[in-house]
Amino acid sequence: MPEKINIEKKVLSENDRLAGEIRQKLVERKIFSFNMVSSPGSGKTSLLEKTLEKLKNEMRIALIAGDVQTENDANRLKAAGGKMVRPIVTGGACHLDAKMVGEAIEQFDLGAVDLLVIENVGNLVCPSSYDLGEDMKVVLISTTEGDDKPLKYPGMFRRSAVMVINKIDLLGSSDFELARVKENALKINGNLKIFEVSCRNGEGLEGWLTWLKEEVSTKRDKI
Amino acid sequence: MPEKINIEKKVLSENDRLAGEIRQKLVERKIFSFNMVSSPGSGKTSLLEKTLEKLKNEMRIALIAGDVQTENDANRLKAAGGKMVRPIVTGGACHLDAKMVGEAIEQFDLGAVDLLVIENVGNLVCPSSYDLGEDMKVVLISTTEGDDKPLKYPGMFRRSAVMVINKIDLLGSSDFELARVKENALKINGNLKIFEVSCRNGEGLEGWLTWLKEEVSTKRDKI
Repeated sequence: MPEKINIEKKVLSENDRLAGEIRQKLVERKIFSFNMVSSPGSGKTSLLEKTLEKLKNEMRIALIAGDVQTENDANRLKAAGGKMVRPIVTGGACHLDAKMVGEAIEQFDLGAVDLLVIENVGNLVCPSSYDLGEDMKVVLISTTEGDDKPLKYPGMFRRSAVMVINKIDLLGSSDFELARVKENALKINGNLKIFEVSCRNGEGLEGWLTWLKEEVSTKRDKI
Repeated sequence: MPEKINIEKKVLSENDRLAGEIRQKLVERKIFSFNMVSSPGSGKTSLLEKTLEKLKNEMRIALIAGDVQTENDANRLKAAGGKMVRPIVTGGACHLDAKMVGEAIEQFDLGAVDLLVIENVGNLVCPSSYDLGEDMKVVLISTTEGDDKPLKYPGMFRRSAVMVINKIDLLGSSDFELARVKENALKINGNLKIFEVSCRNGEGLEGWLTWLKEEVSTKRDKI
């Protein structure tokens, strides 16, 4: 079906153009941004709730929460102290694209933002193909999934700079092994930075938060 | 982008045509079939392993295991006693389509099959749009995900006939509530048949297996 492939190429190149415009805006304003991706239910919103609770008084955080339906995630982020939160309801689409994100960031006063977080639709496949103008993708995986996920969904792990392993409080309740998931992930992408956390009991969050603060400062201090 | 929409419609209608051909073959041979869908890591392969272990001596089961990469799932199903197992590696595609499934079932001797199971790619969005010629979709959700998943990914729950709630041995380790996930699912689809199971300790599997045996017999006994 070459006709389909051509159209897909055209859609992706238009997406890349719009993502470039977003990236330019974020660079000009020295805003660090990441695009959080995972399966449904791995804990993207939970990690962002914890991040907001800990960092909301230290930096100005804008959040975009994508979902196929409902504004549940956006509402949770507001309840966790998010002052700049925009939901995107895709209405069936399985990923966010740069057009949606570009329109959402128009709603923020970017001069008053230090960190832009984009929470993608829960999907370990399709969002990997869409550049949203972010500095990096952060892929989340939880210990209640299989530890072969990086091998089975390699695109996402290859295109992410960071992997957060969530729900480490539940280690031991299944055959999931930390060493194995890390080995599998590093096979796909040897440069992945890895954090192990439990959003439930707070374990490991300090490392994630410290890293995130450094990224935000580094971007802000760039000449 | 109306051009894109037109192409998508064309692809879907070609898919429907091929799915119709598969359905016709399965009807002629009185084979019951279901298409198992879920997020990555909810436990599709685990439930199929248990199903094989319990039913492989009672009926002839053919399985198609879809994955973006690796034949891990197909290998697990073979190890669990699956005698007719075909992997489909989509190489990036986020769902199975009827063309892939049609080619895979060509490899089976359908005259010697009672039950055809199609394990889809782990993705709670895209596979909902693709008819594979199956009798029904079975959606799996696990207690370690959020109990609002049916509201956030309604397409899949609307198009499924059965919902299996897996990992009930982990109830209590998060805020997930059984009553709430069922209420949310039934809001989207009041006809959903619901099973609660733990593939880890075997709880609840009996109900699922009994139902499945009945479906296979009903189809087989149809004149």
